[in-house]
Amino acid sequence: MKKKLKLGLFGFGCVGQGLYHVLTETHGVKAEIKKICVKNKNKARVIEASYFTYEAADILNDPEIDVVVELIDDAEAAFTIVKKAIENGKHVVTANKKMLAENLQEIYQLQQTYNRSILYEGAVCGSIPILRNLEEYYDNDLITSIEGIFNGSTNYILTKVFEEKKSYLEALKAAQDLGFAESDPSLDVKGFDPKFKLTIAIAHTFGVFIRPENIIHVGIQNISAVDLKYARENNLTIKLVARAYKINGSIVGFVAPQYIPSDHILAAVRNEYNAVLVEGAFAEKQVFIGKGAGSYPTGSAVLSDISALTFDYRYEYKKFTQDDGLPFCNEATVDVLISFPEGTLISHRDFETFKGGYQGKGYQYLQGSVQLQKLKEWAEWDEVSVILAPQINLTPASQPAAVERLSA
Amino acid sequence: MKKKLKLGLFGFGCVGQGLYHVLTETHGVKAEIKKICVKNKNKARVIEASYFTYEAADILNDPEIDVVVELIDDAEAAFTIVKKAIENGKHVVTANKKMLAENLQEIYQLQQTYNRSILYEGAVCGSIPILRNLEEYYDNDLITSIEGIFNGSTNYILTKVFEEKKSYLEALKAAQDLGFAESDPSLDVKGFDPKFKLTIAIAHTFGVFIRPENIIHVGIQNISAVDLKYARENNLTIKLVARAYKINGSIVGFVAPQYIPSDHILAAVRNEYNAVLVEGAFAEKQVFIGKGAGSYPTGSAVLSDISALTFDYRYEYKKFTQDDGLPFCNEATVDVLISFPEGTLISHRDFETFKGGYQGKGYQYLQGSVQLQKLKEWAEWDEVSVILAPQINLTPASQPAAVERLSA
Repeated sequence: MKKKLKLGLFGFGCVGQGLYHVLTETHGVKAEIKKICVKNKNKARVIEASYFTYEAADILNDPEIDVVVELIDDAEAAFTIVKKAIENGKHVVTANKKMLAENLQEIYQLQQTYNRSILYEGAVCGSIPILRNLEEYYDNDLITSIEGIFNGSTNYILTKVFEEKKSYLEALKAAQDLGFAESDPSLDVKGFDPKFKLTIAIAHTFGVFIRPENIIHVGIQNISAVDLKYARENNLTIKLVARAYKINGSIVGFVAPQYIPSDHILAAVRNEYNAVLVEGAFAEKQVFIGKGAGSYPTGSAVLSDISALTFDYRYEYKKFTQDDGLPFCNEATVDVLISFPEGTLISHRDFETFKGGYQGKGYQYLQGSVQLQKLKEWAEWDEVSVILAPQINLTPASQPAAVERLSA
Repeated sequence: MKKKLKLGLFGFGCVGQGLYHVLTETHGVKAEIKKICVKNKNKARVIEASYFTYEAADILNDPEIDVVVELIDDAEAAFTIVKKAIENGKHVVTANKKMLAENLQEIYQLQQTYNRSILYEGAVCGSIPILRNLEEYYDNDLITSIEGIFNGSTNYILTKVFEEKKSYLEALKAAQDLGFAESDPSLDVKGFDPKFKLTIAIAHTFGVFIRPENIIHVGIQNISAVDLKYARENNLTIKLVARAYKINGSIVGFVAPQYIPSDHILAAVRNEYNAVLVEGAFAEKQVFIGKGAGSYPTGSAVLSDISALTFDYRYEYKKFTQDDGLPFCNEATVDVLISFPEGTLISHRDFETFKGGYQGKGYQYLQGSVQLQKLKEWAEWDEVSVILAPQINLTPASQPAAVERLSA
């Protein structure tokens, strides 16, 4: 039987306000907001003042509140709230990917210890119900890979850069104006945000908890005019792709921009849309596409979690409990195309297999397969643009060393 | 707690054998096949003879069998099996879209009356978990439309015709050779199969049970060389699209081929893949893509249903129970392009708004908006090819009469 849930919100920004409106406009969910804890006392609020408090305890210690909906920016403060809420017997819904990625194993443990639920569909690819599907629908499917466009703001930027021939900065500004990108965009454009999401997705896909800092990521901030020219001349576009594979008994995963052929399904995923491609032994290739940014799409994912709580839903982490003991590893080679200003200390000797390159207008351009560790090194250099080839030909080391293997 | 389920299968064709292999290869599902009822005693079987029986009663009356998996062709015989299984206290998994579409309201009632579950994810778009998502994830989202490519064999045929410049008959033969199309392909190519799936999807999307014969459908069998030429010249492709909208307080739904711009997401859905686009007030546009034909993809959907039964899963038909009382109606106009041999009795007077046409090489070509009823009429004519415009501009009648309104 459906319970009428009382909610305590932390934060009332873009997603919080989206949730408020979604809750007000729909009639199917038996839940109501009782209290909203915010930080800034001087900010004008769009709804009644009686909803608001400035004291976390007003929510965390209120026995009437069943569910804490955590929607604040600060990952550390968020984790403190989540822990306290669970210890106080409340369920939690959150969309804080950084907090989740950095504490996922403890998030799992807290649910076991206190027999409460922490749901976070909105944290991975906004409106796309990927976690629910990984948990519920693909529990028997031997999934071999998950990959896709996990960040809405960079996809918006790349789309505008390609389709409207905007400069990177113009496109970034447009994304910020629409609320798709933060005022400090580095979490998005440097690839941290999709990496956090990939960390969470890997746990629900392969049953492996890893620390996000062990995932190699390359952002889009160094993509240059030569790269765009190359893409256009070869009927390609560029997307920031997060991916993880089960390969030779290990999980290999990373985030990097990639040249995508124009007839590939990811090329059709534009603007703030995200996409997740899941490949399994039986269901074969499956694609999920939906908005990955914006207050309503994320608010709707948060609402679906709240609705699931009215039915006592919990993630079962089935793949973790049926664990095959797979290690996560970073030893593999991938095919890349890199571009950089002449004089940069990169040469064909950095490649495992060098496929050629050319020089022109002060730029150098090299192509071939490199170790993932090279991507990590180059990602930290200014003006070096690393873009994966359309076919990455991922080749793991024959005896890869596991980066880590957390156990429950 | 997971139960170990004993299964009784009816039928051991393409999907049944896929299921057998999927069950054998996966280790996550606590289920085993006890008995398989088949018709043909003289057919060589790929697995042990002791599995087989020719008597339905050996399964239906076996108290040890928990779940009947119905995978036969004949819709009438299938419904008899399903009813008997439910009456005998068994759960049912089926992928028989014709049987389901024709009896959906009784299928719903049987589950209420006997407190047993009938699951049928494999019946709608093969491997795509659309029913589960409509039931579980979108229960609070005010869905306004569902549309997509619901038939794998016609999509395979259209892809081959366009991309490999095969003739319609060559492409049909290739689809049959791959097991994507039946030896009698008319259920697929005339649009019956996607119509059955649309009937089921409408029930789970809008909570409305309708009879499939009330849904207007146009097939792809009359698509001609002139249509292909028109498409190529205008950077379009052709897809067979099933669709239903909530519009002006009614549900309007139909199946027809449509010209699709090459940058539309449906254009990227090729070969035997299906796609479902769901649009809601909050989650906004969501797309699901996956294989819609083939023994493994459908077998994997059937397996997911079996797995769900180990957790006592049932469809809740929430949208039906929260019913808004929406009628289904066929009174609307849509934009089409039709082609037909000169001398056919079709003229600009058949259009609500006539937008022009031309004649050439014995063919006539007319464009404009027509009543849905006209589509129905023309669909039954030989050599008349009806293809929806890229933008259909669906306009419902101001006071549409409901075709039907079934109640529980």
